[in-house]
Amino acid sequence: MTATRRLAAILAADVVGYSRLMGTDEEGTLERLKEHRRELIDPKIAEHRGRIVKTTGDGVLIEFPSVVDAVRCAVEVQRGMAERNAAIPVERRIELRIGINLGDIITDDDDIYGDGVNVAARLEALAHPGGICISRVVRDQVRDKLDFAFEDMGEQIVKNIARPVRVYRVEPNIGAGAILPGETAAMPDLAISERPSIAVLPFQNMSNDPEQEYFV
Amino acid sequence: MTATRRLAAILAADVVGYSRLMGTDEEGTLERLKEHRRELIDPKIAEHRGRIVKTTGDGVLIEFPSVVDAVRCAVEVQRGMAERNAAIPVERRIELRIGINLGDIITDDDDIYGDGVNVAARLEALAHPGGICISRVVRDQVRDKLDFAFEDMGEQIVKNIARPVRVYRVEPNIGAGAILPGETAAMPDLAISERPSIAVLPFQNMSNDPEQEYFV
Repeated sequence: MTATRRLAAILAADVVGYSRLMGTDEEGTLERLKEHRRELIDPKIAEHRGRIVKTTGDGVLIEFPSVVDAVRCAVEVQRGMAERNAAIPVERRIELRIGINLGDIITDDDDIYGDGVNVAARLEALAHPGGICISRVVRDQVRDKLDFAFEDMGEQIVKNIARPVRVYRVEPNIGAGAILPGETAAMPDLAISERPSIAVLPFQNMSNDPEQEYFV
Repeated sequence: MTATRRLAAILAADVVGYSRLMGTDEEGTLERLKEHRRELIDPKIAEHRGRIVKTTGDGVLIEFPSVVDAVRCAVEVQRGMAERNAAIPVERRIELRIGINLGDIITDDDDIYGDGVNVAARLEALAHPGGICISRVVRDQVRDKLDFAFEDMGEQIVKNIARPVRVYRVEPNIGAGAILPGETAAMPDLAISERPSIAVLPFQNMSNDPEQEYFV
């Protein structure tokens, strides 16, 4: 097979704290990882037509023909992992970090090469446990097709990549209409906050009884 | 076949002034167009693994698996057309306008759909006769892989597309290192100019003969 180019979405994922997990419980960790793959991850990859290019001990590199499908797959995997982890003690949880990029990659003998692949691995390293980081080109392609919000993490310098990469964090539980920090500098007070907030709304006396007026 | 998504480079091309050409010489125009296709355009599409999705009287829509290959194909076609046209009287010349976009498109029964396709057609309409216009996402993917310059034409509002599209003109005869108008406002004097320029370089006397010194 000769080297050819093709457009692809590249998803890089790895297990957070893999060495620590293996150090604590080698067989148990491998067993749980295999279970997550068999019951959740591999079926989701297949459903979205992903191809596993290679696996390392704690990581996997997957190629998708569609970037919309790649982001959908990542969100469904992270949601599924969160559900599966809910009942497991924190120290035994397997959590994933995922990075997704889009690139005109070089393929040769089933392996893939190029900056597009390297950037995916760097995006993955920037993700929180259970989180997904994507590049600007991915955000631009999926923003009008998926109802997730994308938080701008600004330009990041990544190792061995000449140009800075604009990074976005996928917020699968916030709709695309929400206003995220940094999205509109003019409306900072509307930014989503993790602190609880209290809304005070005026009541209206909807009864015909004027005695109820004191509620208002 | 069911509808699926895939990343593709979409190239839209049309013949400039097709109605005028057909009005002047219907049979001659069709004959010359067929000749250009047979001898130049179709072989170039095949060489770069393009797939002709559809042709209209004066236009063609082509899909490429790689956006680098799509831009290479467009440049080679436009260079070839310029060479072939050089010996033909201006009023009989067939000239092409080309637009290239990248998108996560929907494919169904060999046809392709989506904003990614519509934008390619709009980019084509913005190109000069013999020229190539590309979107920002195409520029970003090919800028480090092809030695062409890309002139920023700014954001353009295009029909039926909600967001403005950043458009670049491909300058195949200027290397990527060249500074184009608008690229760096701080160095306007270094902009490529079509006027001839003269460089004055100091000579050095490399002989052992001091009598040659007067050259220096």
